[in-house]
Amino acid sequence: MKLYVIGVGPGDPELITLKGLKILKDCPLLFYPTGGRETLALSVIEKVVSLKDKRLIELYFPMQKIDELYNHWEELAQRVSSALSESKIGAFITLGDPAFYSTFFYLKPFLEKSGIEMEIIPGISSFSGFSAKLKIPLSLNKEEVVITNADTFLKSLSNYLIFDTIVLLKTHRYLKEIKEFSKKHAYMGLVGKRVGQDLEKIWYNLDEVEENELDYFTLVVLKKL
Amino acid sequence: MKLYVIGVGPGDPELITLKGLKILKDCPLLFYPTGGRETLALSVIEKVVSLKDKRLIELYFPMQKIDELYNHWEELAQRVSSALSESKIGAFITLGDPAFYSTFFYLKPFLEKSGIEMEIIPGISSFSGFSAKLKIPLSLNKEEVVITNADTFLKSLSNYLIFDTIVLLKTHRYLKEIKEFSKKHAYMGLVGKRVGQDLEKIWYNLDEVEENELDYFTLVVLKKL
Repeated sequence: MKLYVIGVGPGDPELITLKGLKILKDCPLLFYPTGGRETLALSVIEKVVSLKDKRLIELYFPMQKIDELYNHWEELAQRVSSALSESKIGAFITLGDPAFYSTFFYLKPFLEKSGIEMEIIPGISSFSGFSAKLKIPLSLNKEEVVITNADTFLKSLSNYLIFDTIVLLKTHRYLKEIKEFSKKHAYMGLVGKRVGQDLEKIWYNLDEVEENELDYFTLVVLKKL
Repeated sequence: MKLYVIGVGPGDPELITLKGLKILKDCPLLFYPTGGRETLALSVIEKVVSLKDKRLIELYFPMQKIDELYNHWEELAQRVSSALSESKIGAFITLGDPAFYSTFFYLKPFLEKSGIEMEIIPGISSFSGFSAKLKIPLSLNKEEVVITNADTFLKSLSNYLIFDTIVLLKTHRYLKEIKEFSKKHAYMGLVGKRVGQDLEKIWYNLDEVEENELDYFTLVVLKKL
């Protein structure tokens, strides 16, 4: 039994890798995560892969504290394992790059116990896609980058001041605080909503953004001036 | 005149994106950077793209302090501009992801002055490729990641202790110091040399690595225990 875990990139199906596409075409069985937010991985791949003859299994990851979820993950892993025991190979698709915040890694310990072989195919992360769209590098020469969540960042702001670039995920509820930080400490703020997706919007100036325009798929890149 | 900048990924040509491959196939003119180290971007793409009918132009980026190099970059940009004025489109290839430390961005201000349109195609970074190979995420839940160079990191170690994951590039001359840090502050060290390339080697334990085994294309991922 083998499970491929495929990062499908930030939204543009053309940013899937050659290896990812080949496996997606060949795999008869696809697992796709859904959660407290809508899930886009499936809508990304259906633009380049026919899903007609595939078995699709939804895996629901609720947004709760992780210590309440072990039993739920174990149950999801059992569903994966049971479906794989029939078709032998399958793929778990995940938006962006599995290296950063992919729910797949909650299942992995349970899947290992079932003796499932796994192979991970990296994908383009949302912040790489955003950097490309902006034509601004995240780092050059000796610059350093931090990738974090807005709520963690805001709890200890002074720790981040040595860094040239701060990539903030899950930002939509913290716009006011991020604006204050950028003004006080001379960072410029670039804001990307649904980069590479249909409803993409980009702001080159953080101050021009209104909180009600943002959603879960919004990231902010702060760059030291 | 249009210049595509294409991240070709960490070494495995199967990790090129669909968009990157399409442009590489269509472009009659390719620019490839070389430098103080050997350049691999060309050897990655020639496994999936025929270079036979393409014009190839080497751009040499010496390893010197950047304030000594402005004139050199301007000259390189002029060569790019001049070649593009004939074929109208071309592609600059870069290993990994342009967002992180790509020499392309040294040329960009000069190319903009020449009125060249640019489009950047993101690629899989070395650390995303390494994370996939290890099957260990760089971040999950509320974890944070720093991406930096070993020499910058070693100058102010205490700044990094709040972070769960520290990705260190250009590590091969600093192995002893990195080992000391990981022991003292309880980080595990994962070492990848030429990940996805022919001479790939991976160590799951930093202490088992000898300095003479490493080279420029070595990265270390430190994860808090």
